[in-house]
Amino acid sequence: MTAPARNLDPLIVELRALLGERLSTSEAVRRQHGKDESFHDLAAPDAVAFATSTEDVAAVVRVCARHKVPVIAYGTGTSLEGHVQALHGGVCIDLTQMNAILEVNNEDLDCRVQPGVTRKQLNNHLRDSGLFFPIDPGADASLGGMAATRASGTNAVRYGTMRENVLGLTVVLADGRVIRTGGRARKSAAGYDLTRLFVGSEGTLGIITEIQLRLYGIPESIASAVCSFATLEGAVRTVTQTIQMGIPVARIELLDEFQMDAINRYSDLSYPVQPTLFFEFHGSENGVREQAEMVGEIAAEFGGGDFQWATRQEDRNRLWQARHDAYYASLALRPGCKGWATDVCVPISRMTECLLETRKDIDESGLLAPIVSHAGDGNFHLVFIVDPENQEEMARAGAVNERMVTRALAAGGTCTGEHGIGYGKLEFLKAEHGEAVSVMRQIKTALDPDNIMNPGKVL
Amino acid sequence: MTAPARNLDPLIVELRALLGERLSTSEAVRRQHGKDESFHDLAAPDAVAFATSTEDVAAVVRVCARHKVPVIAYGTGTSLEGHVQALHGGVCIDLTQMNAILEVNNEDLDCRVQPGVTRKQLNNHLRDSGLFFPIDPGADASLGGMAATRASGTNAVRYGTMRENVLGLTVVLADGRVIRTGGRARKSAAGYDLTRLFVGSEGTLGIITEIQLRLYGIPESIASAVCSFATLEGAVRTVTQTIQMGIPVARIELLDEFQMDAINRYSDLSYPVQPTLFFEFHGSENGVREQAEMVGEIAAEFGGGDFQWATRQEDRNRLWQARHDAYYASLALRPGCKGWATDVCVPISRMTECLLETRKDIDESGLLAPIVSHAGDGNFHLVFIVDPENQEEMARAGAVNERMVTRALAAGGTCTGEHGIGYGKLEFLKAEHGEAVSVMRQIKTALDPDNIMNPGKVL
Repeated sequence: MTAPARNLDPLIVELRALLGERLSTSEAVRRQHGKDESFHDLAAPDAVAFATSTEDVAAVVRVCARHKVPVIAYGTGTSLEGHVQALHGGVCIDLTQMNAILEVNNEDLDCRVQPGVTRKQLNNHLRDSGLFFPIDPGADASLGGMAATRASGTNAVRYGTMRENVLGLTVVLADGRVIRTGGRARKSAAGYDLTRLFVGSEGTLGIITEIQLRLYGIPESIASAVCSFATLEGAVRTVTQTIQMGIPVARIELLDEFQMDAINRYSDLSYPVQPTLFFEFHGSENGVREQAEMVGEIAAEFGGGDFQWATRQEDRNRLWQARHDAYYASLALRPGCKGWATDVCVPISRMTECLLETRKDIDESGLLAPIVSHAGDGNFHLVFIVDPENQEEMARAGAVNERMVTRALAAGGTCTGEHGIGYGKLEFLKAEHGEAVSVMRQIKTALDPDNIMNPGKVL
Repeated sequence: MTAPARNLDPLIVELRALLGERLSTSEAVRRQHGKDESFHDLAAPDAVAFATSTEDVAAVVRVCARHKVPVIAYGTGTSLEGHVQALHGGVCIDLTQMNAILEVNNEDLDCRVQPGVTRKQLNNHLRDSGLFFPIDPGADASLGGMAATRASGTNAVRYGTMRENVLGLTVVLADGRVIRTGGRARKSAAGYDLTRLFVGSEGTLGIITEIQLRLYGIPESIASAVCSFATLEGAVRTVTQTIQMGIPVARIELLDEFQMDAINRYSDLSYPVQPTLFFEFHGSENGVREQAEMVGEIAAEFGGGDFQWATRQEDRNRLWQARHDAYYASLALRPGCKGWATDVCVPISRMTECLLETRKDIDESGLLAPIVSHAGDGNFHLVFIVDPENQEEMARAGAVNERMVTRALAAGGTCTGEHGIGYGKLEFLKAEHGEAVSVMRQIKTALDPDNIMNPGKVL
């Protein structure tokens, strides 16, 4: 996809007057900002503006609004459904220089950050405070991008997603107005919930320039463990039973045998090449012991082996780093190929059947696609390792993906648990939400009548 | 306030043809539906439609839309800021006959209900399933009304509010279209979060006709306790420290000495007339013991007495019934007067100062106004016991209320933690949200261009 031909010179001149050196039209910079981590084609913007303040963002948006030129926000480029591609050209606003942690309120367990702060940067900053920010999508994504895509990840089963953990936002709207949504109170019944409207809107309604986040006290005790299973079904059933019993696990992650093979190779580990659960328990010492014993009993019932414990911080870090590298480990299975990551989320009672049918479908299609799952939420991912040049292979992957989504929707689930719509899942949004999509479109039209905010995404 | 004069006869004829006996224009029925539990004046609708299905609601709304006549949803009428008053006349849709529990999914810990189901009805229905629905605003409100007002209450500190516990909705829009929002998956990144937009919109964007709710397993162990304090400050500081330490209390409620006096009289109890905390702990037996010990130590540090435990279910019920009757108990202090209930919510670090300054302000104003607080959330209420005919007294109460809200906003809080805006707090919404209110108005205009959905409320 390419941008329509038009003369953007007057726009560029205006932006250059505003930003000077902080505006780039170099091909290298534009190309670098025209792609996320997905297999989707590059679509470079016409210019990249490096913002350093909310006022910068508002000024750039005002100029673009006057010229009716698209505006696309950019954090770390780690999205997976083509969220940042400049499908209709326009100006990319790079927010990475807005990376200040503005305020940490230890007593209130909250903080305020600029959108370019990454989750690891925040947690490093918090280290000595006894607090942490739990949302962890794997990539060291920017918190602005995480809010914009309603990110979640491994800890969501216990701590929720960005939906639950964003208290308020500063947002630049399509006409350059700046608003603040939400606040620092833990709850409010004052007016429409604009915070939740912007969280997950993928830059199509406005650009997030500040985020108020919930924080949590670091638990007194943390324990991580790995447990291998004879069958994929046994691993899934262990998860569903754990959740149904209300055991407050902090992480309960499932990797199938293909994924375990990949991470063994990539991270130089020697786990059994079997379906495996990665656990983490948070609580008091007694609480953690209690949780671990209960889950251990459930696992044993479903053919799980002994728990291998990682008690030291560095062992835990190694374990979770391996988990987080699952995507790159999968890519390394077939050098030169690309990863097509996709995810769905279903009610927990339907996960066993949805996940097993999907595994069977992949195997029958002859594709390479490890499964990894934030299983406690009913959310599972697969990464097709494909050659984008091979149209037949891409079509086969597309068919498996479509069947997986159809299966998830039939089970009362969603076409994406955490990756978002971008433009890779546009066709599924309507299948999932029907007439409600027209309401989303009414809101989009009301707030962005000229469709300049990340056009071609979500709707 | 009265409705503008206009001829509604053609509308009534059409609605009568649709609903027959289920349309009432009798004065008694209209008056009964023109008021909530607040002190706000009665404003009766022109007719009351008793809906029995989503299709009923959609048909009534379509007729009203054609005639550009207001539509107001009605559940149990237990709101507190004039939410149901027909300020511009129109048709009240009574949803109490839509009281079916449509589906309970034990394995997925969720259910789907019609909007007229009350929270106690749902919990009675769930009793043998081992599950419960925790959100508890005190009144036996309808779940549709609770969703529409983003209700919370005593358990919110542990289980969140309606914001966190509504998974999806069926909504009739201002033009009679029916949409479904959200779904049964625990998380989703598919499109705009319309569920959260309708939760808390107080009937101004659409009428909720089905609600998908999260449920929870009944904890293995539950223990309730009461603890008296020498000073209000000691009680508040016990709460803030408990929250800051991350102790997962299920309920932590504060009642000042005026409120304790009121409930002693009303519920024939003999608690010390002192600032008091009501606790509830949920968890495993060990977990509950651990939590109670930790909180007990904190309380002792701040001048708290011994915990009086309520271990038997009936004692716990008696304790919490007394807490829930606080409003009626306050009313009974001064027979013939009315209650003006108001609430704010602030960051926990600011609660001590906000609550103590408010108590002082009440005392200096010479008003009778017990304070009761969902203290774990930083949310506190006061009920002015006033004579609405006494304009001078009402003005004094209004001034104390305004100062309390101003204080809360200055502390980074909200003008209402859980009661909502209705039309009683319209003036404060702008003070809290500034320019963001114009975005709320854009959304309202997009979805309800003729302003027929509960006009005069929220915006």
